[in-house]
Amino acid sequence: MPNIDFWFSIGSTYSYLSVMRLAKFGAENRVAFRWRPFNVRSIMIEMDNIPFAKKPVKAAYMWRDIERRAGMYGLSPRFPVPYPLKELERANRIAVIGASDEWCPGYTVASYRQWFEEGLPAGSEPNISQSLREAGVDPEETLNRADSAEGAEGLLAATDEARSLGIFGSPTFVVGKELFWGDDRLEDAIAWHARRNT
Amino acid sequence: MPNIDFWFSIGSTYSYLSVMRLAKFGAENRVAFRWRPFNVRSIMIEMDNIPFAKKPVKAAYMWRDIERRAGMYGLSPRFPVPYPLKELERANRIAVIGASDEWCPGYTVASYRQWFEEGLPAGSEPNISQSLREAGVDPEETLNRADSAEGAEGLLAATDEARSLGIFGSPTFVVGKELFWGDDRLEDAIAWHARRNT
Repeated sequence: MPNIDFWFSIGSTYSYLSVMRLAKFGAENRVAFRWRPFNVRSIMIEMDNIPFAKKPVKAAYMWRDIERRAGMYGLSPRFPVPYPLKELERANRIAVIGASDEWCPGYTVASYRQWFEEGLPAGSEPNISQSLREAGVDPEETLNRADSAEGAEGLLAATDEARSLGIFGSPTFVVGKELFWGDDRLEDAIAWHARRNT
Repeated sequence: MPNIDFWFSIGSTYSYLSVMRLAKFGAENRVAFRWRPFNVRSIMIEMDNIPFAKKPVKAAYMWRDIERRAGMYGLSPRFPVPYPLKELERANRIAVIGASDEWCPGYTVASYRQWFEEGLPAGSEPNISQSLREAGVDPEETLNRADSAEGAEGLLAATDEARSLGIFGSPTFVVGKELFWGDDRLEDAIAWHARRNT
């Protein structure tokens, strides 16, 4: 049974760091993560929480901070990364479908790797079909599901659940009733989890 | 000679964590910090960067996050902390005067301790005079300097310098030309500094 819920949206910049390091980090710390995609953009718009658009100094810092931290984790992003994503909703509709099956992590890692390391926006072609193939899923059938009412409703339901938990950003790690927001709180989440289980 | 510039504003919430742990942290890591007070509020208003006002969910998270991190550092804040500060400008005018002498760290630590741990807002009485006395400074003379043109100009000049460096938040650690924003980037700043000096 998963120990920590990992709430994220494909489209979030800092989530790149968590998505790419989570498998190794979980194994090293003997923690299982449940991947919970949602639409952080709609929650942020509701809250008028727009941290980077129209804030060029802060946005420039954000990219440099991600670059440095990626280096700490042995990752190799290629800048500038296309941003923001045009197809954020579609990327996350698919992730929600994948979360019911087993292929959400594989699809998400492939999406971010192509986006941040090859310059191919997540949620758009060719990234989206290639990420599905890498996750072992038929692109055509899955894209049809994502574009249907099932796809829309699945993402809305996940986003409603995130909102009800008090989540306002991506990534957010949830341990019991405690929220830990940001890739830079992953270690705090693990420490909290360890304390609860000792 | 100081190795890392510590830019901060009294009035910033997360800066409590850095202010209270910096002396011990610097000694353990053999790093000297130069304390650089400025007015982060005016820069944030210029940038329309208002992270917490009118964002109650995010603000609630911020206080809980500070509470948890304070626990990690062995600090004992008392919640709710009076916020925002009415006398932010005055608190920082004094800190700038102290930065020219030797008493800025002592005054700032005393200000934050009374504010976060005793519920007495920094920059207002009785906190402000008591913090000056704890720093070994005569309150009356120093308050007169802070309320004069010298006090206003000193804070404006410091804030102009911060802005010219690309600083948009408090605390910010500056190592060479690299900015590290947030108490949670102090360890990154130290690592960067160590790498530069090896």
